[in-house]
Formats: sequence, C-alpha cells, structure tokens
Amino acid sequence: MDKADIGLIGLAVMGQNLVLNMNDHGFKVVVYNRTSSKIENFLKGAAKGTAVQGAYSIPELVAAIKKPRAIMLMVKAGVVVDKLIEQILPHLDAGDVIIDGGNSNYKDSNRRTQALAKQGILFLGVGISGGEAGARHGPSIMPGGNPEAWQRVKPIFQAIAAKVDGQPCCQWVGENGAGHYVKMVHNGIEYGDMQLISEAYQILRQGLGLSVEQLQQVFTTWNQGVLDSYLIEITSHILGVKDEDGAPLVDKILDTAGQKGTGKWTGIDALDLGVPLTLISEAVFARCVSARKDERVKAAKIFPAPQTTFTGDKKTAIAAIHDALYASKIISYAQGYLLMREAAKEYGWQLNHGEIALMWRGGCIIRSRFLGNIKQAFDKNSKLEILLLDEFFATEIKRAEAGWRKAVTIGIELGIPTPAFASALAFYDGYRSERLPANLLQAQRDYFGAHTYERVDKPKGEFFHTNWTGHGGNNVASTIT
Amino acid sequence: MDKADIGLIGLAVMGQNLVLNMNDHGFKVVVYNRTSSKIENFLKGAAKGTAVQGAYSIPELVAAIKKPRAIMLMVKAGVVVDKLIEQILPHLDAGDVIIDGGNSNYKDSNRRTQALAKQGILFLGVGISGGEAGARHGPSIMPGGNPEAWQRVKPIFQAIAAKVDGQPCCQWVGENGAGHYVKMVHNGIEYGDMQLISEAYQILRQGLGLSVEQLQQVFTTWNQGVLDSYLIEITSHILGVKDEDGAPLVDKILDTAGQKGTGKWTGIDALDLGVPLTLISEAVFARCVSARKDERVKAAKIFPAPQTTFTGDKKTAIAAIHDALYASKIISYAQGYLLMREAAKEYGWQLNHGEIALMWRGGCIIRSRFLGNIKQAFDKNSKLEILLLDEFFATEIKRAEAGWRKAVTIGIELGIPTPAFASALAFYDGYRSERLPANLLQAQRDYFGAHTYERVDKPKGEFFHTNWTGHGGNNVASTIT
Repeated sequence: MDKADIGLIGLAVMGQNLVLNMNDHGFKVVVYNRTSSKIENFLKGAAKGTAVQGAYSIPELVAAIKKPRAIMLMVKAGVVVDKLIEQILPHLDAGDVIIDGGNSNYKDSNRRTQALAKQGILFLGVGISGGEAGARHGPSIMPGGNPEAWQRVKPIFQAIAAKVDGQPCCQWVGENGAGHYVKMVHNGIEYGDMQLISEAYQILRQGLGLSVEQLQQVFTTWNQGVLDSYLIEITSHILGVKDEDGAPLVDKILDTAGQKGTGKWTGIDALDLGVPLTLISEAVFARCVSARKDERVKAAKIFPAPQTTFTGDKKTAIAAIHDALYASKIISYAQGYLLMREAAKEYGWQLNHGEIALMWRGGCIIRSRFLGNIKQAFDKNSKLEILLLDEFFATEIKRAEAGWRKAVTIGIELGIPTPAFASALAFYDGYRSERLPANLLQAQRDYFGAHTYERVDKPKGEFFHTNWTGHGGNNVASTIT
Repeated sequence: MDKADIGLIGLAVMGQNLVLNMNDHGFKVVVYNRTSSKIENFLKGAAKGTAVQGAYSIPELVAAIKKPRAIMLMVKAGVVVDKLIEQILPHLDAGDVIIDGGNSNYKDSNRRTQALAKQGILFLGVGISGGEAGARHGPSIMPGGNPEAWQRVKPIFQAIAAKVDGQPCCQWVGENGAGHYVKMVHNGIEYGDMQLISEAYQILRQGLGLSVEQLQQVFTTWNQGVLDSYLIEITSHILGVKDEDGAPLVDKILDTAGQKGTGKWTGIDALDLGVPLTLISEAVFARCVSARKDERVKAAKIFPAPQTTFTGDKKTAIAAIHDALYASKIISYAQGYLLMREAAKEYGWQLNHGEIALMWRGGCIIRSRFLGNIKQAFDKNSKLEILLLDEFFATEIKRAEAGWRKAVTIGIELGIPTPAFASALAFYDGYRSERLPANLLQAQRDYFGAHTYERVDKPKGEFFHTNWTGHGGNNVASTIT
C-alpha cells in the first residue's frame, strides 16, 4: 500500500473536516485518535469511500507516512500538545515535521519550534480559521515555525485553503510562533467584529425599536455594501431563523458569552507591548460583563435606564449606526495591524501585512470585502504606519465620522452600552489630537514622584524637574529648571 | 554599639526617605548601597546628626542587625532583587526576614516567599505608596508574604506609616504576593484617577475654553467636595505654578506619558481573570496613544476636529464634568475592588476590602475622602459584590448620571477624547442591563463553530445547538434543538 502524504491526530470536528478536505484534493491521509471508536466511526461514517486510512497506535500511524513524515495535531491547545509530542517523538526521524493546528499560544509555539529543532525535528505552529465549514471546504491557514518544514506541507495546505482571485489564503507567515500570533490577532479582531455587530443590533432593536424582521432586512442590506462580510451575512441568516413556536430564535438565546484564550491573549500582548488595542480589549471585557448575568439582573432593578425614548428619524439613525460600525471596524483593524507591527519588531518577524490581509480575505470568520481594501492599502505602501493614514481609509472614516458620533450619542442618551463604538471614537479623537492632556499627567508624576518631564520648547530627551511645592529635595538625575 | 533594628539596601530617594522616617520614630537603621559614595553622601547629608549607621559590605550590614534580622531592599524591581537576595542569603540565619519594598510583580513575590521559606528565610513583599514625600513623612504600606515575618517588622512599619483617625495605613494584607498585588491594583487605580483628571482638564480647557487660572479655581473648588483627594489637590497646585516667563508651566510640558509596570500588569491580570477592568485599561492605553506624539501631529493635519464650538452654559457644563469624573471614579474603584475579589478567590487570599480602603485612605497617591466612603461600605457589608451596589454609592452615581452622560456627549461633539469617562459609562450601562446583545453573539458562535448556547427559557447548564444553515453535521456534545 502507498504511504500516506500526511498523518493527522485528533478527530474532533475540525480534524475530521481537514482530513476530508485533504482527501478531496488527492492527498492520502492516515488518522489516529486516542479513543479508537472515533477512528472506526469516522472511517465508517463521514470518511466512507475515501482513501483515508486509520491507525490504531502512534507507531502504526508513524509507519504509514511517507518520509520525511508530516504529522498534524488537531488537539486541545496547552499541555495536551506537549504530551502528544513527547509520545510521538521516539518514533520520528530527523527531518520529520510536526504541525500543531490548534489554537495554541504563540509563546508555546516559539518554545516548541526551538526545542524540537534541537532534536532535528521541524515544527510548524499553524493557525486555522473558518470553523467547521471552513475546515471542510477551504479554511484560512496561517503557518509559522520552522521555514524548512514549510516546503514539505505547502502543497497540501495551499491546496486545501480557501482561494481568493485564484490565490490560496495560506502564505508563509514567519518563524517560531508567528503563525499562531497572527491567528491570535485574527481571533482578537473576530471578538471586535462580533462586538461591533452586537452593539449595532442592540441600538437598532432596543433603541430604535426595530422588529427582528426589520433588523434582518437592515443586515441583509448592509451585507451588500462596504460591510459585506461573513459575520454580517450570518447575522442576517440568524435573524431569519425561527424557534419551534415561530418566534425569532435569537430572542430565546441566553445573553451570556464566554471568553477565554485568544481574545484575551491579544489584549494581554497589546498591554505588554504598549500598543493601544482598545477596541478588542473592550470587546473581551464586554463578554465578561455579559457573563455576570445574575448581577446584571439585580443591578437593573436598582439603576433604571434614562427615561428617554428615541424620537429622531429612524432612517437617518440606521445610517448613523451603519457608519459607526464601519468607522469602528476601521479603527479595530488599524489597532490590530499596529499590534502586529510592534510584535514583529519585538519578536524579530518579517510580517507581510498585505499577505496577512489576503489570508484573512477568504476562508476565515472575519473574511470580508474590507480585507481586500486593506490588502490594497499595504500593497500600495508596505510601510504604512497605521491603516487610517491610508488614503482610502482616511476618506472612508471622514465620511463616516458624523454618523459615528451621532450613533454613540444615541446610545448614551438611551442608556444602551456601546463600549466598542465609544472606545474606537475616543481612540480616533486621541490619535488625531496634536495636543493631549498628558502634559498635566506628567506634571503630576513629577510632582509626587520626581519622574521629570520633557518640554514642548526644548529638544526631546532633555528632562526637567520642578520643585512644585517649594520645599523638599531635588533628587533627580537630569537637568533641573 | 547597639545593633540596628533593621537594615536597608538601596539609597535612592525612596530608600533614603524611609530610613529617615524610621529614624524619626526611634528605630536604629543600618544602610548599605552598592555604590559606596552614596552611603557617604547620605550620612554626611540628609542623615547627618541621626542614629543612622553605614555598612560598606553585605557581611558588615548583616552583622550590624539584631537577630532575627530584618533586611529591607529598596532596589529596582526584577532580576536585581533576585541577585541581591542571592548575595545576602549566605550571611543569614534561619528566621531572618528579607523585605522587598519595591514595585515588584506579585508573581515574583509568590515565588520568592515560597523559595525562601524552603531555606528557613522569611520573605515579605511590601507595596509602598506615597512618593518621596510619603516615604519621608508617612507612606501607605501594604505588606504581604510570610505571616511569621510580619510580627518582626510590624512595629516599625506601623510607626512610619501614615495615620488616619489614629490608625496606621499599614495592615497585614495576605500571604505570598498579596501585598504587591494590592499595591499593583492601587497603581492601576492611580492610572485611572490621573486619566480622569486629565480628561476633565482637557474638556474644560479646550472644550469650554477656560483659562489656566479659571481651571485652577475649578480644581480648588472640587477639592472641597466629594472629589477631595491628593491628586485633585496637586492638580490645583500644578495649575498655579508659572514658568520663568510668567506663563503657566503646565502648558510648556510635553504631552507624552510613559507607562510600564504596575498599570499594565493590572490590566493584564484583569484580562487573565476575566474581570471587566475597562477604565484602568483605557487609562493605560491612553498613555500609549499620548506617547505616539509624532504620529498624532501627522494625523491631526489629516483629520480635523469637528467644526463645533461649545455654546451651552459653562457653569452647567462644569458641573456635568465634575459629575462625570465622580461617577467614573466610582466605576473605576468598583472595577478595581472586583478584580481584588476575583484575585483573592483565584490565589487563595483573604483580602479585607475595608482595611485595604483604610490603607489607601492616607499616605498614598490615591488618598481621598472617597476612600473613607469605601471603607464604610465594606464595614457595613464585607461581602458587598460590587461597590456600586452599596447604598451610598448607588445614590451618588444616580445623582451624577445625567451630568456624566452630558459630559461624554460634549466630548464627542467637540472631538475631545474621553476614553475613561466613556468606557466607565459603557460599563455602567452594560452592568445595569438585564438584557445584553450577547445572545446574538452566542448565536454567531454556534453558527460558525457549533459552540452551543443556553436558552432563557431553560435551566442554565443545558446547552443547545442549532443547524442554522440546514446542512452540515451536528457535531455537538449536548442536547440538540
């Protein structure tokens, strides 16, 4: 029997669908799973009639793969990956490739790439997005790790990936944890996009009093314009689904969202690198607030909403909410790309921002027309400091600005929370402020801690201390006024 | 010669001032510094005529201290602390106490407490706030670590700490890194308070067009009411200080603020624990935006401010800004205490929220009348879930609410960023919302990732999946609708 092109461990839904996708593209896959009944069920079920082969032990799996071997792990991120690598390792030869396709932390992928390289094993940390359907029919794939390993799996991964204008949504990202880093930022952006849609939904529903049917129409219309994207599209589908009693199903769903893993990691890394990733952080925190449902029910009785009802023109308001979503989305992506820019400097990666946009353009959860505009922006200027300085986006944001301000104001007047819209607007107003009040803040720090400050009328790098109170010492290293 | 009550290493300004403070209270202190000229200068300078003694090597320092010895480190947080501990360790006896008084990460203090305990050495990680002046005349001191060690240094620390109503702003916090954790949250809150004052300052200055003299009057007045606090007080002092040319000095200060260490650690820990600490995170990010001055100058040319000028009644607007600051401050402290509550659960501490308020009530940078109200709230109900559910604060926030909404709206209309005011308001509106749009978000997650959802009409813990598209598999663990 011919040896397999690749082995895959972990037959949960993502693993199964990737295997079927590879099989569709003519690759022979051998699969293993700790619980062997899962292998049986898969081979007799979804994989029936395919060339997919089962292995009932790790040695059997390893023996069935072409050399240099490629083994892909689709298991829960964390210690499970390390334990599995330990089990596989004794059976491998130098030059074999281990691929982790889970939602691993990029720091783990940094560590694993380096540790395995010392043993002659090539490691790839690969971010995969697209959910069940993406995995089956064309996901977005973000590979990083050991560049030597990339050539071994490139034909398989580029074949199974989504395509946009004939190009695969799968390009080499960078060394060590770069692939998982970019996937992490992707997921953070996904948190942001979902929060933005939720805020629009709530103002439309609760503030303007639209019915679910009217809402569905709004999202369907939006999906034909600049907001055209997978998440807006599925929102309009969701709003059309009825429960058994004929009422909109969305109304029956409990309003508490989980958060863990990649969303919060993105915020943590941003804080760590000092990058103002406000929108995604607010989106993560908004999920935390939603999770405190019992407290909210209690607080709702104590703190009633403002006694204000919306009296303006609904059509104008809907357009304003559209613009708020669009402008906030530009800010969110601008912040996300800023984070990747700083991360690349910090961790020594050469990230190609245009190719990242291309990878996200299709296959993944955040796929959208918008990412085509981002690709164009970076194609035009690969050194673009921040997305909103690109001419296209600058024009778009200026066009959307008035509506954005209006939508946030409507939320504030009606007592409807718009943490992401408002945070994005505050970032925009901060970023476009030549003068911010940090001068007062620096004065305070110098007052109580002798931290010194720079002056607007002196060169940067020259530090001053003022003896603000007229008494006490002058314990500073630098020039004293 | 009598042996010293305590030894102190590190004669930067904080170390020097703590030594003088201990000396004032009748404790004999022996000091050591790596650069010996610093010892000389201190003994011949600020410490002249005191009982402070110098030591020119670590063995000499150790030999000069009463047993069980207490040695306090006032050095830069991080590896310097570990290296110093390594150097001291061979000279110590079991039962001796090492105190780290720097701004160390609580995780390091967890580790050090445990590692040193194995060698019979008692470690204390102690947060100290109050800046130069606090250290000299009465800081706030937050001790944690090994409880056995606390008795050894309690008389010294409680003597030198600030006093409020006769009680020292220094109480035992908890085991391991608890002291540094509480100090970290204190610093995070300090970031928030400073940002809130800065936002008020900028709307007043740029939005309402007040002069620096008028601003000083506003802050002086505010300091006589509910906002009475050290930071408001020094703000009014700062606004009164003139540069050599007679112009307000604050206008000459460069508007870029640094951020690192404790502020960002607070945000990181909140994300890690899933606690919505939105205001402090926005405050940290606002510093990051301020630091990008060159980009801001460029962006200011491309994105002009809205062509709107303030036309309302200034007195009403000033009152609204006051209320925005006050209400946002309540939210910030509510979030900070929520974080400590969750951290205590996670890390196994018994944090006394009332005593923490007492410690912060005097001596430290965030000291205020407000912290007296917080102490009362926790004295009344030590199990209070969140500060804003306390009757006093609930009443205060409701009273301030209309002004708060107005102030944020003024900022939005004029294009003045108020990330902290706005984020606090969004949190408030989220927390008091019985229904949030997370139902839509859960529907989206179930649509693309089969993550399942709970229902409002079914018991919690029962999970449902919908086959939203009418095709594809049903790969979920739980009940299916």
